[in-house]
Amino acid sequence: MSPADAPVLALTCGEPAGIGPELAVMLADDGVIPARVVAVGDPALLAERAAMIGREVRVLELDRDEPPPAARQGVLPVWPVTLRAASRPGELDTANADHVLETLDVALAACRTGQAAGMVTAPLHKGVILEAGHAGFTGHTEYLRDACGVDEVVMMLATDSALHAREANWQGNAALRVALATTHLPLREVADAITGTRLKRLLHILHADLRRWFGVEQPRIAVCGLNPHAGEGGHLGREEIDVIVPALAALRAEGLTLDGPLPADTLFTPRHLEGVDAVLAMYHDQGLPVLKYAGFGRAANITLGLPLVRTSVDHGTALDLAGTGRADLGSLRVAVALAAEMARRA
Amino acid sequence: MSPADAPVLALTCGEPAGIGPELAVMLADDGVIPARVVAVGDPALLAERAAMIGREVRVLELDRDEPPPAARQGVLPVWPVTLRAASRPGELDTANADHVLETLDVALAACRTGQAAGMVTAPLHKGVILEAGHAGFTGHTEYLRDACGVDEVVMMLATDSALHAREANWQGNAALRVALATTHLPLREVADAITGTRLKRLLHILHADLRRWFGVEQPRIAVCGLNPHAGEGGHLGREEIDVIVPALAALRAEGLTLDGPLPADTLFTPRHLEGVDAVLAMYHDQGLPVLKYAGFGRAANITLGLPLVRTSVDHGTALDLAGTGRADLGSLRVAVALAAEMARRA
Repeated sequence: MSPADAPVLALTCGEPAGIGPELAVMLADDGVIPARVVAVGDPALLAERAAMIGREVRVLELDRDEPPPAARQGVLPVWPVTLRAASRPGELDTANADHVLETLDVALAACRTGQAAGMVTAPLHKGVILEAGHAGFTGHTEYLRDACGVDEVVMMLATDSALHAREANWQGNAALRVALATTHLPLREVADAITGTRLKRLLHILHADLRRWFGVEQPRIAVCGLNPHAGEGGHLGREEIDVIVPALAALRAEGLTLDGPLPADTLFTPRHLEGVDAVLAMYHDQGLPVLKYAGFGRAANITLGLPLVRTSVDHGTALDLAGTGRADLGSLRVAVALAAEMARRA
Repeated sequence: MSPADAPVLALTCGEPAGIGPELAVMLADDGVIPARVVAVGDPALLAERAAMIGREVRVLELDRDEPPPAARQGVLPVWPVTLRAASRPGELDTANADHVLETLDVALAACRTGQAAGMVTAPLHKGVILEAGHAGFTGHTEYLRDACGVDEVVMMLATDSALHAREANWQGNAALRVALATTHLPLREVADAITGTRLKRLLHILHADLRRWFGVEQPRIAVCGLNPHAGEGGHLGREEIDVIVPALAALRAEGLTLDGPLPADTLFTPRHLEGVDAVLAMYHDQGLPVLKYAGFGRAANITLGLPLVRTSVDHGTALDLAGTGRADLGSLRVAVALAAEMARRA
């Protein structure tokens, strides 16, 4: 693929006091990028952070409706969204909460008009947006879900894309994709949140989006049990028997290819992962520790169920690292590679 | 270490219809073994299974009080425990439940008298022992706990020992050890089972046994939170604030070195695992999927808190594989290597 016809990805810079802006700079300085990445953020801030971390990156301010040129190392095209207040690394300011949300709106609009083939988001800071008066704000994913007018999205993390492995000559494991049936819930609320209706909705989305964005004709999805040993025939919990098994049976009758419910510590072994396109874990800490262990800091987050391509880094704002240039670009590289891969199928 | 003074390990053969007996045969045929392993089981059964899987292994029947000779490839010393009924691969028989328990008693006695420096257990079948009338039997670990008269034990899984890695020239990951604060509980009962008293008892055992059996002078233990993101300051559950943090503070005041509570998906990354001697996960599927993923079929189970060395394979009886010789010896190799390593420090 030549850079000139590479997909355009809008990269929102996230919380200005965090590592997002400098990650955008580092990415522009990173050599081969499988997309034409346009930062969505404040051009002056980006230039300032580039200088601060000692990177010779030229910030190329575009008009909002101007397509970016072919990707070139050392050049960072930007669709400008001006800061509301000056921002210093590590110092949160509620005055910039609307700036952060505006970058999301600009990226969304670019995806809708086709100016961008997808969006990649750097981390924002939930607390400061809530504090600024946006009550009920719970994060990127829900904001985008509501903005797109869909009822349900699925959070999936992936370790890698074939593209990334090839280009970075990365000696990691094969790609692993883990979707979550529940996300940010206290552990004691998880069991009740696993319903047949929920599992069916999520698996429909997962099945459809593995086909649509990842080009998997007949996706094979491995599903974890909720309880240890997947309930061991009811001895360690009945949710498998009462909820999960019937839901999977109904979906198989519709033609979905599903393994499980399997004990999570059996499923995440090479024999069971072979040929599996994605794993559905029942909850956060059943699926993500192994994903992040396997990913070795090179995992990214994908939101399925949206009418557009959206990936994200799998880490936070790292306020303590902001401005030092010591942030790890690994997750953003994967997020961009995945979005590019998905966008080519859009 | 010369084979003649290698530690003696009693290997109970487990359920006779399962893969235990043939794993003992395969181990004897496996070249360098870092211990003098004595099978505890039926000599005729072992000879029969050796023939069935086509291994030229000579079964050397010892007297119960006779020490095994130096380890030699192709020779399997046995402390005999006669079957109660003939056993065929894959066919469970309640008549042999007492046979299985007797092998445990013989191994325990050998550890107590010093004839054996430790015991390694092949898998038994819980269901058939219950069915045979041993109501309340819940597994090896609890049986050994009660037989040793201790109140509490800790289940820990480990991927490897340095010894094993060296001898097998295994290209796996560095050793990972994961202990569990709760084990075989339905997920919805986990949160209530995590109490300060329990955490303190378990961490005392873990700390003491890392010193005693693994030679770690000042163990560093990383502790997972219960909730996703370790509760995110109370937004995703309060057990960290109310229970875990105070328990760890009390233990630190006693001199224990503890990290956490950390989000499980942060903890299981190279940066946080570096220098950590063991991880304490709050529940089964928070810790074991990553352990087994990392171990790649080469993990073993260690029971801490007993007055003796006991390790075990991390898999079940695999009735469908019994008699085929296709069982994977990987976990038993690690279990033996770990027991040998521990026994040398006993």
